[in-house]
Amino acid sequence: MVSEKQGKAMDLSHHLSDLSRARPISALKGLARYMGKPGLIALAGGMPHPDYFPYADVSANALAADSYSLQTSEPDESVSWFWKLFGNSSKEKIMPIFVPKYAPKASDVNLATALQYGTAQGLVALQDFVKTFSEKVYQPGYSDWTILMSTGNTDGLSRAIQTLCNPGELFITEEWTYPSALASSQPFNIRPVAVEMDGEGMRSDALRTLLTEWDETVRGAKRPHVIYTVPVGQNPSGATMGLDRKKEIYDICVEFDVIIVEDDPYFFLQQGPYEPKDIRSTRPLPTNADEWLSSLKPSYLKVDHQGRVIRLDTFSKTIAPGSRLGWFTCNPLFAERLERQGETTTQAPCGFGQSLVTQLLKSWGQDGYVRWLEGLAVQYKTRRDYIIDCFAEEFHLRRSLGTHGVWKGLEVYDLYAKPPADAAGLEKFDFGSKLISFVPPTSGMFIWMKVSFKDHPSFKEGDEESLEMKLWTELAEAGVLIAPGWMFSATGDNLGADEGHFRISFANANLDVMKKAVGIMGNVFREFFKQ
Amino acid sequence: MVSEKQGKAMDLSHHLSDLSRARPISALKGLARYMGKPGLIALAGGMPHPDYFPYADVSANALAADSYSLQTSEPDESVSWFWKLFGNSSKEKIMPIFVPKYAPKASDVNLATALQYGTAQGLVALQDFVKTFSEKVYQPGYSDWTILMSTGNTDGLSRAIQTLCNPGELFITEEWTYPSALASSQPFNIRPVAVEMDGEGMRSDALRTLLTEWDETVRGAKRPHVIYTVPVGQNPSGATMGLDRKKEIYDICVEFDVIIVEDDPYFFLQQGPYEPKDIRSTRPLPTNADEWLSSLKPSYLKVDHQGRVIRLDTFSKTIAPGSRLGWFTCNPLFAERLERQGETTTQAPCGFGQSLVTQLLKSWGQDGYVRWLEGLAVQYKTRRDYIIDCFAEEFHLRRSLGTHGVWKGLEVYDLYAKPPADAAGLEKFDFGSKLISFVPPTSGMFIWMKVSFKDHPSFKEGDEESLEMKLWTELAEAGVLIAPGWMFSATGDNLGADEGHFRISFANANLDVMKKAVGIMGNVFREFFKQ
Repeated sequence: MVSEKQGKAMDLSHHLSDLSRARPISALKGLARYMGKPGLIALAGGMPHPDYFPYADVSANALAADSYSLQTSEPDESVSWFWKLFGNSSKEKIMPIFVPKYAPKASDVNLATALQYGTAQGLVALQDFVKTFSEKVYQPGYSDWTILMSTGNTDGLSRAIQTLCNPGELFITEEWTYPSALASSQPFNIRPVAVEMDGEGMRSDALRTLLTEWDETVRGAKRPHVIYTVPVGQNPSGATMGLDRKKEIYDICVEFDVIIVEDDPYFFLQQGPYEPKDIRSTRPLPTNADEWLSSLKPSYLKVDHQGRVIRLDTFSKTIAPGSRLGWFTCNPLFAERLERQGETTTQAPCGFGQSLVTQLLKSWGQDGYVRWLEGLAVQYKTRRDYIIDCFAEEFHLRRSLGTHGVWKGLEVYDLYAKPPADAAGLEKFDFGSKLISFVPPTSGMFIWMKVSFKDHPSFKEGDEESLEMKLWTELAEAGVLIAPGWMFSATGDNLGADEGHFRISFANANLDVMKKAVGIMGNVFREFFKQ
Repeated sequence: MVSEKQGKAMDLSHHLSDLSRARPISALKGLARYMGKPGLIALAGGMPHPDYFPYADVSANALAADSYSLQTSEPDESVSWFWKLFGNSSKEKIMPIFVPKYAPKASDVNLATALQYGTAQGLVALQDFVKTFSEKVYQPGYSDWTILMSTGNTDGLSRAIQTLCNPGELFITEEWTYPSALASSQPFNIRPVAVEMDGEGMRSDALRTLLTEWDETVRGAKRPHVIYTVPVGQNPSGATMGLDRKKEIYDICVEFDVIIVEDDPYFFLQQGPYEPKDIRSTRPLPTNADEWLSSLKPSYLKVDHQGRVIRLDTFSKTIAPGSRLGWFTCNPLFAERLERQGETTTQAPCGFGQSLVTQLLKSWGQDGYVRWLEGLAVQYKTRRDYIIDCFAEEFHLRRSLGTHGVWKGLEVYDLYAKPPADAAGLEKFDFGSKLISFVPPTSGMFIWMKVSFKDHPSFKEGDEESLEMKLWTELAEAGVLIAPGWMFSATGDNLGADEGHFRISFANANLDVMKKAVGIMGNVFREFFKQ
């Protein structure tokens, strides 16, 4: 019996926009039949002879797949290159990789191919690797899904939105969302419509209401047929969506014929719940790759039995942002249009990047890559734990139960000014205003903070210059740059003057620097609420 | 006295399209003031710590700048990597380049920066190099021009057209043009309008007529305000435009307020006139860089005193297509919008490519890069000469004077079937139909061929399946893939059934393979006209 999951993608061609109608270049009438035919002399393209590429070979010293420990502990400094630079001993494990200009076997990665004009699909060896990887990790729910390389997820979401939306149309997204998604669609007059969130991200009940009650005449646009969503370590809220919610949303998308663009850069940065320092377990993550992978909240692809998900993967968070490399996983119809868009803009991703990433992945192997990712997840868990520990030290911490919005039902961390060391009995101490609230994220790179301005001495309703930007500026002047919340508002409807938001990244700074930053924040917040 | 050439770009903001209105991401209100401030702790962006980039360093064996001779002779096989691969001795000059993860000086190229998120402008060291290079080589006619990295010219032209044109608008181009320029604008309903060409490319008189006589009601669109042009080694015609014609066209653009998008990938592949083998001089090219550069037909930038040129440069033909790297040179207003477009699509070009190209260029130095380019020009001259020599051997060659169209006033090479070796007095021999005509190109990678079908036995006016595609298919079946002319027609108006066109590239195949291909073409053409 062939189960539903082994079926093919359904015909979703009615979702393709006018903007997606790029003429094929590589597949022009007749040409495709002959291209790559053995023995054929190709005098058609303007391709320089590879002898003229001024690189004989490219090589790299790469890190071993198990460079980072699976044990949660103090951050692993063993591979700090700063230390190496200054002559300190270091324990990094180096693995050389090499890309020759010409390889004995054509299927081996080589510069003659990688630095030549290539198809927008990407290097064959890289496609093979990510296809196998996607199958193993995401387990799409239908059979004829395919992959296509991209130059990262900003390129990916820009191409996906253009492939699906006509000018004047709306797409659905979370009420707080990634600013580039807004910036890239806005010139085409393709605008967001926001759905409320809870601790798992987009609310399925709110989505259903939006779609059910859609009134074209009131809204001035037809009912949206595209969702853009960041379901894991949501940017900026940090929310992570489980399988049940994904199923609910997917079923609604089937009912209302909606396509899901799943932008998932933080999938492998799933860290699990935050545990306070004094009760934190230091057990290592599973050393069995399958065990670890199955502990992660799955992709929308897993429930996608009709081919209505365009998943965007990127190497930006797992290898390096400058690799400008990622991939689409979707049905073959959408993939073909996305490929045409690539041909008429970026063409193939950079050959230096493709070949160096491919050689690294091939050297690591599938298991090695998963091991690398798991090591990274532990690093991010350590960083998250550390910065929250810092906040718990710098401020007086109370916990409360979230009652509405993004934090409904979740344990909220409320930060107050610390009482002076000589304060008498804490139970009688007046802690004053709550300065900051947040829910410790379980994935991603960010803490999403809420600040209530209701009790701020200079709060006036309808204040022109928002207190959010005032506080943000004071933080910047004091030496800490964080991201102001208004940047992430999908439609601006959620920007109340009595509440501010900030997104803080724990991805980049060294730990001692993060500690210093939290100290500065403590001073600025305490002073700010005295004003 | 400040001359006109030292003035600033004029205000051309009215040329910006709706499609260009991407919101700034990197320059959000207030943020720009603090970014990069020394000592500031940045917790704003989702940038991974560079320790997590799994590359300790990247290096390459590059070719020396003087790898290729300046002497025109038989093609220089000294750097053939195939030979090296099979153990033969080789004379290639190798120059190692190295990119560390962390560099002692922040201004040195390093992976911690190159593989991090970067601005769409590109690596600073690379910007510096191409800015100095552009100043020296192109000598823009105003003072505040700027540069911006791109991911090659297909990305470049796509962004330039979107920056300048609204949906429904037309842009001006040559009657034969680069198919990607058509393919990338067509989904936005931005269409080409063709101007007739002569041996120098776009005709200035025809351009003036088009603009003067433009009738919005007849044309159904307002008068175009953008020209897209390939002025050197034009694709596909091979035409190269001199300074006087460029001045004429520029003056018309000033008069009618038109912006010029100058797509110039073949600028450094200027080869000079073809000389028949028996009278060919083998003098070397100038060894003085300035002398060689001043022998090249200059860029439109040289006459641009108002800032109305967006020049597109690419490393695709001079380093490698897979570098996916190039740059815009234009006024600062357009550059800012092009940068915003980059931010919302590709972001910065790939960091592996940027750093490896930057280190190569810095190792070569400005003079070394010019020396490399001159060596390449000689290689392409040798290839062009060789393939034309092959045609002159395979066919019976006559020369005629072009009387109209692209070849007006130029010496045309007409190819006929060769008489049998035992044929009596050639003056009485019936050579039958002219099989092929072309003008030897002076730049670029292509020979643009015309085939007259008027005398073809099966010629019927209004033939559905064109003889061009029939002949093309027979060539492909016989083992030679060339590009059919219809692909390059800007509007289709120039596709007469009695005439076919083909574009043949001499850039890629090894010389013995090109010779074989010309032999196959001889057989197919002779047979085809007997049908």
